[in-house]
Amino acid sequence: VSQSKKSRTNVDIYGQMYVIVGEEEPSHIRMVANIVDKRMKELNEINPSLDTNKLAVLTAVNIVNEYAKLKSDHENLLQKHKREGQEEDD
Amino acid sequence: VSQSKKSRTNVDIYGQMYVIVGEEEPSHIRMVANIVDKRMKELNEINPSLDTNKLAVLTAVNIVNEYAKLKSDHENLLQKHKREGQEEDD
Repeated sequence: VSQSKKSRTNVDIYGQMYVIVGEEEPSHIRMVANIVDKRMKELNEINPSLDTNKLAVLTAVNIVNEYAKLKSDHENLLQKHKREGQEEDD
Repeated sequence: VSQSKKSRTNVDIYGQMYVIVGEEEPSHIRMVANIVDKRMKELNEINPSLDTNKLAVLTAVNIVNEYAKLKSDHENLLQKHKREGQEEDD
């Protein structure tokens, strides 16, 4: 049975092993896992009283917040790009 | 003592209360928290055997992965935008 293009990658995040299944390259999955691991460790240094569960949830909150900002920047740039494209057509 | 512009917002994420301190508007913080809550619930439906801690970590992994893709799109668009701006200057 073919497993299509899915890879299985073992990663360590905050001392726990995870098997991540995805279509991305294992090197990309490790890079992403390292970011989460690093962000959880940074948040733990600022807030040593948080348990692992809260650390992970608040790390996710921070990343969604950054995602929302980047998304807004990206949409503004797309709008600007379209507008300038239209001006050139006039 | 001034508290600068920091707001304190109570949010419920996956059945747990969090106080989020930040410079963003409470409505923005609630929107971000709702996304994390929704993503954890979605992942729980796909993977009911994961404990809350792993759900939160894997949600963070998924969001970092999406962030990395958006970042790459954004940088490509920035490059394209700069390049076209330079062409106009020639």
